[in-house]
Amino acid sequence: MPHTTAASFTSPFDIGPNALIVPVSCIVMPGIAMKLDQLPTPSLILDKNRLSSNIQMMGRKFQDGTVTLRPHLKTCKSADVAREIFAGGKGGITVSTLKEAEYFLEAGYQDILYAVSIAPQKLDQVKALQDRGATMTLLLDEAEVAAEVSRIGLSLGTVFPCLIEIDSDGKRAGLTPDDAALIDVARLLHAGEGTDLAGVMTHAGGSYACQSVDGIIQMAEQERLAITQAADRIREAGLPCPIVSLGSTPTATFGKSLQGVTEVRAGVYVFQDLVMTALGVCTHKDIAISVLATVISHKKDRNRLLIDAGSLALSADPGKPNPTGKPHFGQVCRMEDTAPLDGLWVNSCNQEHGLISLEGSSFTCDDFPVGTRLRILPNHACITAAAYSEYHVVEGGDDITAVWPRCNGW
Amino acid sequence: MPHTTAASFTSPFDIGPNALIVPVSCIVMPGIAMKLDQLPTPSLILDKNRLSSNIQMMGRKFQDGTVTLRPHLKTCKSADVAREIFAGGKGGITVSTLKEAEYFLEAGYQDILYAVSIAPQKLDQVKALQDRGATMTLLLDEAEVAAEVSRIGLSLGTVFPCLIEIDSDGKRAGLTPDDAALIDVARLLHAGEGTDLAGVMTHAGGSYACQSVDGIIQMAEQERLAITQAADRIREAGLPCPIVSLGSTPTATFGKSLQGVTEVRAGVYVFQDLVMTALGVCTHKDIAISVLATVISHKKDRNRLLIDAGSLALSADPGKPNPTGKPHFGQVCRMEDTAPLDGLWVNSCNQEHGLISLEGSSFTCDDFPVGTRLRILPNHACITAAAYSEYHVVEGGDDITAVWPRCNGW
Repeated sequence: MPHTTAASFTSPFDIGPNALIVPVSCIVMPGIAMKLDQLPTPSLILDKNRLSSNIQMMGRKFQDGTVTLRPHLKTCKSADVAREIFAGGKGGITVSTLKEAEYFLEAGYQDILYAVSIAPQKLDQVKALQDRGATMTLLLDEAEVAAEVSRIGLSLGTVFPCLIEIDSDGKRAGLTPDDAALIDVARLLHAGEGTDLAGVMTHAGGSYACQSVDGIIQMAEQERLAITQAADRIREAGLPCPIVSLGSTPTATFGKSLQGVTEVRAGVYVFQDLVMTALGVCTHKDIAISVLATVISHKKDRNRLLIDAGSLALSADPGKPNPTGKPHFGQVCRMEDTAPLDGLWVNSCNQEHGLISLEGSSFTCDDFPVGTRLRILPNHACITAAAYSEYHVVEGGDDITAVWPRCNGW
Repeated sequence: MPHTTAASFTSPFDIGPNALIVPVSCIVMPGIAMKLDQLPTPSLILDKNRLSSNIQMMGRKFQDGTVTLRPHLKTCKSADVAREIFAGGKGGITVSTLKEAEYFLEAGYQDILYAVSIAPQKLDQVKALQDRGATMTLLLDEAEVAAEVSRIGLSLGTVFPCLIEIDSDGKRAGLTPDDAALIDVARLLHAGEGTDLAGVMTHAGGSYACQSVDGIIQMAEQERLAITQAADRIREAGLPCPIVSLGSTPTATFGKSLQGVTEVRAGVYVFQDLVMTALGVCTHKDIAISVLATVISHKKDRNRLLIDAGSLALSADPGKPNPTGKPHFGQVCRMEDTAPLDGLWVNSCNQEHGLISLEGSSFTCDDFPVGTRLRILPNHACITAAAYSEYHVVEGGDDITAVWPRCNGW
């Protein structure tokens, strides 16, 4: 594919065994622009117009500056998307892997929250990031770990700022706000020579299981109450708690109050996906990424199509049932304008095959000759995107205007 | 990670927009060998001893040479694994993407079956592979496509050998052996100036849904009958049918007869996985790949562990229920020797988190301090492995003796 490096150039970076993989973002040279129908399939398409709209929608909630949005870049894993989020500036970010931390540090983002519980064995990597200019904030929820992190920080001649993870929904990790251990951990972090008590953090992942927008609103308040109660307890114990961090795309979208909160994290809002559509967070017109696929065969007697996007290209994530209650692996849309084709979903997948049933729709196999191109909206944007090494960027139309690399793996 | 390129060096290769990604296989320098407990987590571990044993087990079935094993390299996507399969020699291979075809051609494998229905738009890529020395065999099942492939072959000045896909189980693609269209397609391929009728191919993917070994044995015979009936019909019409190809790991393992068959395809047998274990194809001691993960937190009140391997590291593929009938995302094993920890499975996943419940087991959270390393056996080896850019190779022990790259993406 003919392209040239340009303003969006990202420096090569080096992180361990994957050092030979050098993502470089490109813009496509004018005059030899490639179009959607010339791309190899499957490919991952990013509609920059929708991306911008999603970024603006969330950004407006935080424009008064009283609470900071700290975007979670685990969804996009892209310095080009980060540049769009920060409008060319820089700000605090959230990451889910230390590889992302290294990648975004290279791209100029120094204020990095690694929002997955730290294992002390990873502190050498964290120290190396600090040495290169990163302000790394870590996460933990156990006294033994706090003590060990502090011990290692001291031995490495550094200090690791740590948030205490708070459990606001019983779904995954963290101490409940009333757990006796909370103050123990806070004291250890505060007193430890190799740690700083940076505050508290929670993630209401339970919002993904809500049945209604009202349920999400309640979950957002539950999330806020949990984290502010935890912060209050720490302060009542005479300890500092500067950061009070919460967030998920659903609760960030619908939460009514951020009283007592200092920062909100959200990630998938930049792309949105069919899980977010099912939750009422967005409509299909907001979904910014799609998988470009080709019809490769039919089973006319069974009234179904085969496409060249299967469980590797779409992911095996089941998402949520479609509006008729059926499981699926993505919504089938026209290539040209991502308009959903009424009643068509990817009904099942093998490694490189997706099956689309036309039963109950107004379509027949003859409407989709072999070679027809379709775009599939993803169930879970974070997981689908991870199958690709880059985004092919469009701006509403069918011209590929840029190729943006991703930072996959660990 | 310190390593040096060595005998297993793989040439850089160039395929379209991913040309900057240059997998290079390495052996680890003696004296600075890395061990399992020094690797970053999550990492993908390949036990070469188990790989060799699986390769030998399947190879023995074909050692008399009457039927050819054409391994499906979509599972491993690795020239190093291919070298083990062919014991340093070369032979016919099966691939699921044209990127794999390009990659394995660079590694010296010229006889390549692309076993996914061809879309005519991809023929330029196929022609480029032919021009570089590949013997590419394609797959299709529609008269319109056969005519178009022939037309394009003629216009490009080449001939595309094609197999006709036969449906032996109603699961995915292909013509049933008694379909009237079979002879039409065969005639078109035979008469077309840009095509050759190479034969017939089927894949009994339905074997993955069998409930017993007896069921797989029956499915294998159903697969054989379908493909040989199709071949017989073509020959009775006065047309050639040199290749009669079938296969899946379950049917290749248990099939009683290959009468009338010329080649067998199988892929996952090299690694095996928990789906194959559930089918009775192998035991957990045969599974050659595992995900190395670290315990990063606990929920002591809920008696569960969190590890740093979630749906990206393990895949969201649900596989089959465990022996107690519960869904899971992998079986939890000791790091040292991949011995399963009784009753422990990865019960749920988020993007970078796996949750392991200890309920009903003899373990408590105190048995797994933060930092404990575990190995997780995968549900579906093909899909789990696709999350990694390389294998870290061990040979039964805990020394990393090589790093083998994979050819991911499209």
